[in-house]
Amino acid sequence: MSNAIPASVTALIEAFARLPGVGPKTASRLTYFLLRAPNEVSETLAQSILDLKAKTRLCNICFNITEEETCAVCKDPQRDGSIIAVVEEPLDVMAIERTGTYNGRYHVLHGVISPRDGIGPDQLKIKELIKRVNGGGVNELIISTNPGMEGDATAMAIKSELDKLGLTLKLSRLARGLPTGADLEYADSVTLMRALQGRQPL
Amino acid sequence: MSNAIPASVTALIEAFARLPGVGPKTASRLTYFLLRAPNEVSETLAQSILDLKAKTRLCNICFNITEEETCAVCKDPQRDGSIIAVVEEPLDVMAIERTGTYNGRYHVLHGVISPRDGIGPDQLKIKELIKRVNGGGVNELIISTNPGMEGDATAMAIKSELDKLGLTLKLSRLARGLPTGADLEYADSVTLMRALQGRQPL
Repeated sequence: MSNAIPASVTALIEAFARLPGVGPKTASRLTYFLLRAPNEVSETLAQSILDLKAKTRLCNICFNITEEETCAVCKDPQRDGSIIAVVEEPLDVMAIERTGTYNGRYHVLHGVISPRDGIGPDQLKIKELIKRVNGGGVNELIISTNPGMEGDATAMAIKSELDKLGLTLKLSRLARGLPTGADLEYADSVTLMRALQGRQPL
Repeated sequence: MSNAIPASVTALIEAFARLPGVGPKTASRLTYFLLRAPNEVSETLAQSILDLKAKTRLCNICFNITEEETCAVCKDPQRDGSIIAVVEEPLDVMAIERTGTYNGRYHVLHGVISPRDGIGPDQLKIKELIKRVNGGGVNELIISTNPGMEGDATAMAIKSELDKLGLTLKLSRLARGLPTGADLEYADSVTLMRALQGRQPL
C-alpha cells in the first residue's frame, strides 16, 4: 500500500532517520516541512551540510573543530595558554565558551575511555595532550570530562600518564553538586552525596 | 568568545534550527554528529534534500506528493475511486495507508480553515475537491481532517459547498472516542463525551 509515497520522499525520511534522536515520525515531519518550505530553506540546509565536511578540520594543537590549521582560540594571544580545559567533545568547548568566564585554552579528547565500546586511552587525544604539556608553559589542566564513571576513568588515565613522566602541574575536575534550580527532594543520591562532600563555607 | 566555533559549523546549526521541533541544542548535536559521521552520511542527506524539491510535485488529481503528474494511488485501477478520504496533509495519507485497510482514494486539502492564521476555504484545495465530486463517480467522502475546531470547521465548509451545488453523496467524519490503550481515568472530558455519544452496540 505504501506506493502512495514517492521514492524521493522515502529517501529523505530515511536519511533524516539516521540522525541521532530522529525517529521515523520526526523524520517524516521534517521531510514534509521541507516539501512545503521555500526552496531556499532546503538549499541552505543541503549546502551547509556539504560545507561542513568540506571546510572543517581538527585544530593541530587542541583538536577542536576549525576551518584553519590552528583554531581561533589557540591562535588568540589574549587567551591564557597556561590553563587548558580538557573536554570530551567540541560541543563541550561551545558549552564552556557560552559561560563567558573562561579565558584559557582547550584540548578536545574526542571521546572518553569506555571499555564497553572498546575505547581505551590510545583512541583519545591523550598522547597529544601529554606532548603539549611536556612542551612547557602549561600550569593547570581542568579535566572537564563529564561527571560519571567514564569521565572519571579518563581523568585518572590522564593523571597517571602525567605522573609517569613526573610532570607536576595543577590538576582539577569541574565541581560536582546540585545544578542551579534543582530541588533537593528530587536530587539523586550520588549528586547529593557529591554536594555534601563539596560543601562550601558560607 | 564564540570565535571558538567556525562559521561553517554555525551555519549548519542555524540551518538545522530552522526545522520545526529542532532547537539550538538539538541543532548543535546533529551538526557534531555529522562532523564525526562518514562523508557518505552527509552526502546522502544533502542529496536527498535537494532531490526532494527537484523531483516531487503535487498530483494533478488528489494533490498528494508525487514524482509524476498523477500519483500512484490515483493511477491504480485497483483502488476504489468512489470513496475519497479528504485529509489535511500528505502525512495523513501515509498514516491512513499504514492501517493497510483503506482501498479508496484521497484528496489532500493542504491545510485547514484557520481564521487565526488567515487561512480560509479558498486557500485550501476545496474547489478542486468539489470539481472532482462534480465530475461524477464519487459516492462517499470520508472527511478525515483532524478532530478539533479547525478540522470540524473545514468539514462543515466542504459540506456547505456540496449542499450549495445540490450534490448529494455520503459524507462521514472519522470516529471519535478513546484511543486504543487509553485509560478512562486520564481521558480528557471532550474525548470521553465523544466516546459516550458514539457508543457502539455490543
